[in-house]
Amino acid sequence: MKIRCLPIDTYPENTAFLLRGGGDFAPEQFQAMRKLAIGDGQKSILAALAIVDDKRLLAPGEIGLGEQAFRRLGLAEGSKVTVRQAQPPHSLEFVRRKIDGDTLEDAEIGEVIRDIAAYRYSPMEIAAFLVACAGFMTTQETFALTRAMADVGSRLHWPPGPIVDKHCIGGIPGNRTSMIVVPIVAAHGLVMPKTSSRAITSPSGTADTMEVLASVDLSATELKEVVDRAHGALAWGGRVNLSPADDILISVERPLRIDTFDQLVASILSKKVAAGSTHLLIDIPVGPSAKVRSQSEAVRLRKLFEYVGGKLGLTLDIVFTDGSQPVGRGVGPVLEARDVMAVLRNDPAAPADLREHALMLAGRVLEFDPALEGGTGLGRARALLDSGQALAAMEKIIDAQGRRTVAIEVGALLHDIRAGHHGSVAAIDCHLIARIARAAGAPMDKGAGIDLMRKVGDRILQGDILYRIHAESPAGLAFARELAEASPAYTVAS
Amino acid sequence: MKIRCLPIDTYPENTAFLLRGGGDFAPEQFQAMRKLAIGDGQKSILAALAIVDDKRLLAPGEIGLGEQAFRRLGLAEGSKVTVRQAQPPHSLEFVRRKIDGDTLEDAEIGEVIRDIAAYRYSPMEIAAFLVACAGFMTTQETFALTRAMADVGSRLHWPPGPIVDKHCIGGIPGNRTSMIVVPIVAAHGLVMPKTSSRAITSPSGTADTMEVLASVDLSATELKEVVDRAHGALAWGGRVNLSPADDILISVERPLRIDTFDQLVASILSKKVAAGSTHLLIDIPVGPSAKVRSQSEAVRLRKLFEYVGGKLGLTLDIVFTDGSQPVGRGVGPVLEARDVMAVLRNDPAAPADLREHALMLAGRVLEFDPALEGGTGLGRARALLDSGQALAAMEKIIDAQGRRTVAIEVGALLHDIRAGHHGSVAAIDCHLIARIARAAGAPMDKGAGIDLMRKVGDRILQGDILYRIHAESPAGLAFARELAEASPAYTVAS
Repeated sequence: MKIRCLPIDTYPENTAFLLRGGGDFAPEQFQAMRKLAIGDGQKSILAALAIVDDKRLLAPGEIGLGEQAFRRLGLAEGSKVTVRQAQPPHSLEFVRRKIDGDTLEDAEIGEVIRDIAAYRYSPMEIAAFLVACAGFMTTQETFALTRAMADVGSRLHWPPGPIVDKHCIGGIPGNRTSMIVVPIVAAHGLVMPKTSSRAITSPSGTADTMEVLASVDLSATELKEVVDRAHGALAWGGRVNLSPADDILISVERPLRIDTFDQLVASILSKKVAAGSTHLLIDIPVGPSAKVRSQSEAVRLRKLFEYVGGKLGLTLDIVFTDGSQPVGRGVGPVLEARDVMAVLRNDPAAPADLREHALMLAGRVLEFDPALEGGTGLGRARALLDSGQALAAMEKIIDAQGRRTVAIEVGALLHDIRAGHHGSVAAIDCHLIARIARAAGAPMDKGAGIDLMRKVGDRILQGDILYRIHAESPAGLAFARELAEASPAYTVAS
Repeated sequence: MKIRCLPIDTYPENTAFLLRGGGDFAPEQFQAMRKLAIGDGQKSILAALAIVDDKRLLAPGEIGLGEQAFRRLGLAEGSKVTVRQAQPPHSLEFVRRKIDGDTLEDAEIGEVIRDIAAYRYSPMEIAAFLVACAGFMTTQETFALTRAMADVGSRLHWPPGPIVDKHCIGGIPGNRTSMIVVPIVAAHGLVMPKTSSRAITSPSGTADTMEVLASVDLSATELKEVVDRAHGALAWGGRVNLSPADDILISVERPLRIDTFDQLVASILSKKVAAGSTHLLIDIPVGPSAKVRSQSEAVRLRKLFEYVGGKLGLTLDIVFTDGSQPVGRGVGPVLEARDVMAVLRNDPAAPADLREHALMLAGRVLEFDPALEGGTGLGRARALLDSGQALAAMEKIIDAQGRRTVAIEVGALLHDIRAGHHGSVAAIDCHLIARIARAAGAPMDKGAGIDLMRKVGDRILQGDILYRIHAESPAGLAFARELAEASPAYTVAS
């Protein structure tokens, strides 16, 4: 059959389209199997089947491919391909055994992950694997999963010496410390090639916020050039294809809200190993609306990081931080970038909590430097920030990555949420703040988000602005406003 | 937005199509959520989102619906609808708790099942529920699941008195006993309104085979009329909408090959309760390539049937039968119908194993008749068959359901699989026979399938025909032949 690209983008699964009754075989023959293998002998993909009833979309003898499937197959339009019922991947047998409660061998987990990374699993099959793993997983299995994920996709190689990194397990809006830590550490001279994700369910990822200032869409070669010039980088990880299985697993974990510690550890450490990191600081915020809600959970997570990280040869430092409320003021790409630059410029109006949090983390990363006297990391970090060396390092990184020439402004459509009575702010719900900022349009609309005018402990009078919603579209403003009015994210104690 | 039906059939999930950048909001805003709620205030559906890049498919302000989604929404083309991000069903919280290892309350399981039946779950979410249940389920949960499934959809009501049924848990090709048992039991005078499924992964379901002889696509009213006239029926269950959640669960269980006893029991008993059965014979074939592989497994399954069936108020009889090889000769709709009619006509060439197996089952169903003396069921069944009363009852059922006027012939394209050496047939792999028959085109091509010329224990000479493949299309013949030559389903001991 000949392939034809149909102007339809389906996500996350590949889709192929067959004309009803238009080929050598009835599409119904495939219906029970639902998945097709399409290829020319060299390249091949699996795709879910949709049946088309209109000859204007497809001619007999043609197989349609959605845009994603067409891109992944990588053949020219009109190429001849063979179309077969897809054999289910052999590794699904291991998934079935995992469902039955078995412990899998390292090699078996490796085969599952390679098949997932090759898009051979449907979301349904990935969900089955993840839920079976959520039921029960040994630490050895978590280690095998992590290593298998790191082994799939690209790997970055660096010159000898510590390659440092930091990772925050997230969930705290506005907590954009990496953009302060990296320039401090780079100014000191350690190599910190940080790759970050874009937001999936949060209002901004580090890559989204950095993109307000500079290009983040770097190839592996470009990333190396940036690090050569500036010691550090703040790039989007997607382009360099580190642990691609992780991205696929996440696309199923998020809608199902599967957030086991096993998957969390495998996700983070596989990306770091693939990125060539040797020393890693992990920031675990603990708080009632954070990912980790108690000290005992945090300790359990720390131990799992230590076990798996240790077997992978990583040097880990793990820090528990205050995850009780958002950090900084801005939530959303432009607003967060504003806060970050204010800290780096030593602007007196810069959010003090963001500054102190970033300094503490930078100090601990600096302690990875064998040349630094133990206990002096924080002082060194503060000196690099206060002296403007961190700002200079950031400007160097921005220039190396490609400075954005036209500034992006904060969203011009505003709505203020005000206090209904006086008192003091008792709590701010991180989840709700994130959801409202997303409803406003963040991270797609970079200027959309929330500016927090009050933090926990602040005294307020009735009518004071608690936070301001910024949006770029009337629909975004309306969505966010509706949500904010239905479920106030602030608890005010009178 | 206005709905437009796109000539695309997606399965099993509903799909909605939005033009990239063509509405009030960017489709990217939806991408993280992926699921849309579409409705006019009265009717609504959930659908997965695909993005279209061609204004010939969709105009701005239009939302496209695949054929299935359009049908399920049930509004006219051009109807105005509102489109929102779908809120995940509340019952997904229960699924998450089940993933975490909790035991769910009856009401919680009920909510999950109602949401699944309303197409509010994606296949990924259904897989999560099924795998979480596969990990651990109490018998009370299995009972609650069964009852919830029976309570969703239609229910058939019958006059007082025993409403008998039989069910084989399947996996044995050619085992078309229902089409012999029902006419025997109907000839006796018991009411046996049997509804059956079409094949999903097997080469033929009872509904597919019966359809060779008569219409099976009956509404509830038509089914009642048939039973009024003929005491029995052999109808397709799909039209009467019994336990629709079962069909949706099965569409995910099959590709994942989740075949826990809990799901099996819930699937079978929910359909029977919804069909109004009071007395049920369950046939559990036990064999190395059957669904149940050992006597101890069979006992465990029997106990679960007894527990759940008992709480549902069903009278159950459970029989273990020989599942070591296919039953009868034909595999595929036309070939199986031929065998069934040969047995009913007392044709000396009729497969003896099918005849004896059906008589034994019919005898046990007849024992449900309180008026029959204990132990006389088998004799009564034999008498009804030998006398031609069962055949007459079958003709009555066929006429009542609507006799097929043009006979369907067996597939004219043939390929014989012959013995490579002499010896005797030691084993026949039920799975492989089923796969080869499906590859030949069964059940879609009703004349396609396999005619088994030799059974276990038969002496054979080199070159003897072991089985004959029938197909209606050259592609089907080639698929089946390729599969048969790659993996012979017969083991011949010399």
